Amino acid sequence: MATHPVTVRVVGTGLIGASLGIALSRKGFNVTLSDPSPTAARLARDLGAGEVADEAAEVPELVVVAAPPDVAAQVVVESLSRWPDAVVTDVASVKGAIADAVASAGGDLARYVGSHPMAGRERSGAGAARGDLFEGRAWVVVPTAVSRPEAVELVRQVAIAVGSAVSVMGAREHDAAVAVVSHVPQLAASLVAGRLRDVPDPAVALAGQGLRDVTRIAASDPHLWTQILAANATAVREVLTELRTDLDEVIEALNALETGDGRGALEVVNRTVGNGNAGQSRIPGKHGAARTAYATVVVMVPDTPGALGNLLTDMGDAGVNLEDLHLEHGLGQPFGLAEVSVVPGSVERLLQALDERGWRVHD
Amino acid sequence: MATHPVTVRVVGTGLIGASLGIALSRKGFNVTLSDPSPTAARLARDLGAGEVADEAAEVPELVVVAAPPDVAAQVVVESLSRWPDAVVTDVASVKGAIADAVASAGGDLARYVGSHPMAGRERSGAGAARGDLFEGRAWVVVPTAVSRPEAVELVRQVAIAVGSAVSVMGAREHDAAVAVVSHVPQLAASLVAGRLRDVPDPAVALAGQGLRDVTRIAASDPHLWTQILAANATAVREVLTELRTDLDEVIEALNALETGDGRGALEVVNRTVGNGNAGQSRIPGKHGAARTAYATVVVMVPDTPGALGNLLTDMGDAGVNLEDLHLEHGLGQPFGLAEVSVVPGSVERLLQALDERGWRVHD
Repeated sequence: MATHPVTVRVVGTGLIGASLGIALSRKGFNVTLSDPSPTAARLARDLGAGEVADEAAEVPELVVVAAPPDVAAQVVVESLSRWPDAVVTDVASVKGAIADAVASAGGDLARYVGSHPMAGRERSGAGAARGDLFEGRAWVVVPTAVSRPEAVELVRQVAIAVGSAVSVMGAREHDAAVAVVSHVPQLAASLVAGRLRDVPDPAVALAGQGLRDVTRIAASDPHLWTQILAANATAVREVLTELRTDLDEVIEALNALETGDGRGALEVVNRTVGNGNAGQSRIPGKHGAARTAYATVVVMVPDTPGALGNLLTDMGDAGVNLEDLHLEHGLGQPFGLAEVSVVPGSVERLLQALDERGWRVHD
Repeated sequence: MATHPVTVRVVGTGLIGASLGIALSRKGFNVTLSDPSPTAARLARDLGAGEVADEAAEVPELVVVAAPPDVAAQVVVESLSRWPDAVVTDVASVKGAIADAVASAGGDLARYVGSHPMAGRERSGAGAARGDLFEGRAWVVVPTAVSRPEAVELVRQVAIAVGSAVSVMGAREHDAAVAVVSHVPQLAASLVAGRLRDVPDPAVALAGQGLRDVTRIAASDPHLWTQILAANATAVREVLTELRTDLDEVIEALNALETGDGRGALEVVNRTVGNGNAGQSRIPGKHGAARTAYATVVVMVPDTPGALGNLLTDMGDAGVNLEDLHLEHGLGQPFGLAEVSVVPGSVERLLQALDERGWRVHD
């Protein structure tokens, strides 16, 4: 890392660009800003994201292209050409298509390194920017085959500077990864939720916490997801095709059970659910750490302001750290069930503490 | 409802049977217990579920068959025959197959009324029984076409007595409902999680909260789910087949985008995610009430015992009721993000209160 303040040009001052400008300025980087909308650039400046770039602006050592996904490749190519010594990165969530477009346009791939900061908010635009947007989030650094090591290192240092957990992988590897851990789960949630459209009210009224969890991300923005899924069409289609093969096998097995000749069908259903167990157990726990088998305690909590707070305060007083929390609201009841996860060694202490304080616990 | 204590025989003292015995005994019902395992019946008795039935036991007015799903129909038939004046219900989670089997065996359908108490725990057996297992949970009462009104009313009163939110529907309607709100979401979660089995570690490490939510129920018991899915094969297969049609359309659209001729493909992807929005918005909020559009505030919470409790206590002090809560743990960071949902009218008060108390809020 350079010993002088690194000069960074942020191109595109929406949520990600402006947030990055704020975070880097705070860390002593020398940030200049540009955006097709002068108002957006000035708003980002007013929020502390850096100075609005002009012709006299310092030549950047690093250019961060934070333009919308469908123009990112073009802006990367222009930036590589305009600043022939600068390292250029972009923040689009699908990487292969951008690197391919840069290569096709004859851009200098040695100075290009892709980025995917896995941070976002429900709101967009510079007005929603936050300097801590990247703290604790994954940031994937995606070099091309010919990216210079010092270019990769510069991008890595920027990601570390804003508090992200950095990993490095190739574009194909990255796009395949986000297809299976993000894009296909999104589509599955959308497809399951979509089936609820024409269901009678009394049926939807039987929805439980499982359905709520599976479909929570089905509330995501269609416009945004259309861009993402289109940009990663190949990798998403590959995983979806495998999933369809698994689905076909289940449908065939259920069909065999209906028509009576169900030989082997139960094995298929059992294996499908078992494979889900195996896959789910691979998802890392918090802090990217290896997954711990947490113990779960269910507590009845009155549905009044502060009641859940009192519960968690009592847990804190007992020295028990909460690892995860799920709320399940009673149907037509003035209370909810709080499912609290703790490390197994804490369960006895927790149960005793809650009992002493009058909580109704389902161990 | 009878004015004298109603006499109930619980046949099968596993988790559900024993819990029901405890709950009904507390409410003054006169409960006797039987189980193929005398030890299980005595354990349930020791837990307060009722008295172990003997030959001299009172003739029951209501028999609750809480046997495993694959023998429930047979036990219902035997019970209808053994106690010719009693109402008989069962607690299996799929209803059509049981009613059909009772009809085939010539059982008296006028005295049979199905039940589906939507309660359960991760643990099974009488040892895990709890008298409050049914409080605030849905309990679907499923009459046959010829069930006597007073038989339906007796079962309804039992469900109300143990604190459940009761609804009444036919077997086909019930089975179609649980297929779409429970069984298909379970399979979708299993299939998405199953795809993670062979994914490289660095890819799984990119898992975010969305994937965790979608796949949480993929950890469910394969043996139990094989029984459930097999019993509801027809209804599940129907919904899965519709879902496969939707999935095929998405795969075809992504294929069209890959091969260049993507005319109409973006519309398909956009519509799929949009349909998910529409379906998801139908899922009722807490208390079975119409869904409210809650406002969401994201707060940074140190990962120390009691910190989340302090946050919720501060919310309570400000008179703001928590409607829902999601935790997202930072990757490699000593804090998490708490996404708290409140009614929109409370947001300003909440933001001010949190600010005054020094919380870092992402509004």
